[in-house]
Amino acid sequence: MDTVMQSERADLALKDVLPASEPLYRQLAGHYRRAIRNGVLRPGERMPSMRAFMQRHGVSLATATESYRVLEREALIEARPRAGYFVRASQRAALPAASEPDLAALPQAAQFVGIHSAISAIVSQYQRYPDAFNLGGATASADLYPTDALQKAALRALRRRPTLLTAVGPDQGDPALRAIIARRALEAGIQIGADDIIMTHGGIEAVNLALRAVTQPGDTVAVESPCFFGLLQALESLGLRALEIPASPTSGLAIEALEFALQTHPDIKAVVVVPNLQNPLGSVMPDSHKARLVELCARARIALIEDDPYRELVDSAQPLRSLKAWDNDGTVIHCTSFNKTLAPGMRIGWINGGRWHPRIGMLKFAQSRHNEQLSQVVLAEFLETNAYERHLRRLRDRLRLQRERMSAAIGTSFPDGTRFTPPAGGMFFWIELPHAVSSAALFDAALKQRIRVMPGTVFSNAGRFDRFIRLSCPSTDLERADEAVLKLGRLATAMAARAATQAA
Amino acid sequence: MDTVMQSERADLALKDVLPASEPLYRQLAGHYRRAIRNGVLRPGERMPSMRAFMQRHGVSLATATESYRVLEREALIEARPRAGYFVRASQRAALPAASEPDLAALPQAAQFVGIHSAISAIVSQYQRYPDAFNLGGATASADLYPTDALQKAALRALRRRPTLLTAVGPDQGDPALRAIIARRALEAGIQIGADDIIMTHGGIEAVNLALRAVTQPGDTVAVESPCFFGLLQALESLGLRALEIPASPTSGLAIEALEFALQTHPDIKAVVVVPNLQNPLGSVMPDSHKARLVELCARARIALIEDDPYRELVDSAQPLRSLKAWDNDGTVIHCTSFNKTLAPGMRIGWINGGRWHPRIGMLKFAQSRHNEQLSQVVLAEFLETNAYERHLRRLRDRLRLQRERMSAAIGTSFPDGTRFTPPAGGMFFWIELPHAVSSAALFDAALKQRIRVMPGTVFSNAGRFDRFIRLSCPSTDLERADEAVLKLGRLATAMAARAATQAA
Repeated sequence: MDTVMQSERADLALKDVLPASEPLYRQLAGHYRRAIRNGVLRPGERMPSMRAFMQRHGVSLATATESYRVLEREALIEARPRAGYFVRASQRAALPAASEPDLAALPQAAQFVGIHSAISAIVSQYQRYPDAFNLGGATASADLYPTDALQKAALRALRRRPTLLTAVGPDQGDPALRAIIARRALEAGIQIGADDIIMTHGGIEAVNLALRAVTQPGDTVAVESPCFFGLLQALESLGLRALEIPASPTSGLAIEALEFALQTHPDIKAVVVVPNLQNPLGSVMPDSHKARLVELCARARIALIEDDPYRELVDSAQPLRSLKAWDNDGTVIHCTSFNKTLAPGMRIGWINGGRWHPRIGMLKFAQSRHNEQLSQVVLAEFLETNAYERHLRRLRDRLRLQRERMSAAIGTSFPDGTRFTPPAGGMFFWIELPHAVSSAALFDAALKQRIRVMPGTVFSNAGRFDRFIRLSCPSTDLERADEAVLKLGRLATAMAARAATQAA
Repeated sequence: MDTVMQSERADLALKDVLPASEPLYRQLAGHYRRAIRNGVLRPGERMPSMRAFMQRHGVSLATATESYRVLEREALIEARPRAGYFVRASQRAALPAASEPDLAALPQAAQFVGIHSAISAIVSQYQRYPDAFNLGGATASADLYPTDALQKAALRALRRRPTLLTAVGPDQGDPALRAIIARRALEAGIQIGADDIIMTHGGIEAVNLALRAVTQPGDTVAVESPCFFGLLQALESLGLRALEIPASPTSGLAIEALEFALQTHPDIKAVVVVPNLQNPLGSVMPDSHKARLVELCARARIALIEDDPYRELVDSAQPLRSLKAWDNDGTVIHCTSFNKTLAPGMRIGWINGGRWHPRIGMLKFAQSRHNEQLSQVVLAEFLETNAYERHLRRLRDRLRLQRERMSAAIGTSFPDGTRFTPPAGGMFFWIELPHAVSSAALFDAALKQRIRVMPGTVFSNAGRFDRFIRLSCPSTDLERADEAVLKLGRLATAMAARAATQAA
């Protein structure tokens, strides 16, 4: 079977699989990447010539060249002088996608009381090597964010409104900002007014307020598994029990598993879900799942708390929708922030509390009063002038490049038996290590080599992810990031080899 | 009895009564003010001549003139052409000091669930008259704060550190700021290091974290009565029961009453106290009471949560000390903020959690992460350069002038039977109305005349202060404030008269 035939056959599915908004060269590179990873194109096989490529896909030479350049950068193909492009011989069979969760393995509810100590232990380990390269963070580095533009906007705001620091701000947050946010929420399918929004100190305050509004200490809350450890900390600090519902690395929360859990655990008071680019999975729930999830929670009369800070980091033609878009009766509490998309230093989040909105307003006032005004005014200007959109496009491009580089580095350096699914956006990689490799041991070994990773142990109260690590690609120093990932992969490979020797 | 004799007699006590740091002319004005209020100097009596005044007190003509000017401004004396100064004929007997609390009236613990509705009702009433003059607020107006200097400091900070908005800040807050705060805390008698401080979103977040650290929902917390309604809201929102302990308008919390309560209510988990310039009383606990209170809580092994945002607004020669100054074993959780003293728009507070400090650090991280950096950097510069001290001196002078004006206006316009104790600093007046006047009715009538006051009903869960109002002097527009207070006094007088007519 020749490669041309294969490519043509694969073409049929192209328009269904790839988001139309992606630049063509990226769509085509992705198409061939999958063919190589799936083994449809084998190591050593010749890639279509430039001319054949142009004809087959009806694209320009520039597009063809750019597509191959992406694949070359990812070490998937190589140019041989006067012979054309070939699938790299050294290319071993691509890493398989992450495993789907075992739906039968529904754990019992447990109020874990050690997640904070686990995190503290990691932080104090980190502090022993302050110069380590950070693959464990959850925030991109400052140079991916519009530092100059935000600084200028802040200077303008301070000059225009000198009493921003001295006058008391409005309780729910700056009204002009809330009006703009309400308009922009339409893009996510959310229809609300400015008064339906309460500004919060980052997204995490929003999630805490949502939990406080709908639960009492001792209650059970269903969460995704694996789950952002900050949520487990919030639950622990509020005296709540986490019931971990399996989540798929591609489609997020397993709705059937939740359905089953609601039947067997009538004490569940709320479900917390990150529908778009789940942390750590990077999964995105399909619209059909979102609709089912909202309906399920509405029927069960429990709160559906949606934590949605990554939505705008997804590479897709159409903006993704939030769960709130399907909400008809106030079941969904929508929480989000601008910490991940615009400015980690500006602690700006917001919440719409659905039918619990007045109670959340009361809790926010009683807990911390209004947000500071300055960053709200800066944000309002940013959102009003398209500066935010321009920045987002640039950020998504930068993150995509980083993800491609990182995927390639992981693919070439991690041991056989490693599994991972490249995420659809954002910055997280959720990596399943081979059975012989423990994430705790890899964490230790990596830190001694001045590399920070986040061990899977902190993403569950039930010890379900001891063989996983979360990597992120926060830095713009791509060379150093490559080097760190390759070093990490070699460490894991050595561990796997040692285990194999011991077993033999 | 001539006025000279009286004044000389009164002189004897002068040095014992007045703080040595006050300017001489104010000390002397205060001396004569009391003589007039006490009725020692009666309406129509002649004041000492300038010459006699200068000789008796050994002061310059400028000082003598300035003293009389203060008294004139307060409408206590008047100049008659070619005859000298006289106690104003219209001056009626001064209002008596506020009543001391009835220590026998210890209420039962009650988890009141309506304080938020009560506040909401007031706020929505306020909103019907947005142009009303505000005597009901808890924050001075922006023009009492160093708007220009803070704006400039913020501009400098942004230019010097452009990534302040985009980079993630340190978890416990800016380390340089915390080091300066730790040094400054020595003035309040507090010996801590930078690591013993966690920055919070205003003082109210600090108090919330303290309560969460030491209680479970359903627990009982002892509070002062009357008590800042924000604390009652926090307790309600956390599911805690408030046990109201009587407080004196001069010396604050009645220690014996607390001692008795601790014996009869073994379920008390914490005591919350505003030791310096209590809100709404304006009382300051004497050092001996502070020492006893700390010792009492240490012995009972319960947390003593000190909310101390007004300490630096007290007019006194020596800086007042915080309860924490007497703490030997981590019993005291110290909470404070810069919202009242420096910048209401900057949400900066801090907490030292005593023996619960690590738990509070965990709760703060889980709830809202770190504070924004910009205002912390601005504050650090302010504290480092003496700009804060200069501002405080000016603020205290301005507030004292406002309090004097307001005391005079209350004294001349409120009906007989009104009682109040002029506060030792800050901006609150806690006024007990005659029996015939309800604070709710006065609130309504005042609002229709475009004046906001805070009715006493919201300062207790047990309905103990329905005949009280809290006034504040937040505005720098002294003429308008005078006018508003006089109007309010006339309203109250009319109500009292109407009630008397009906009773007759």
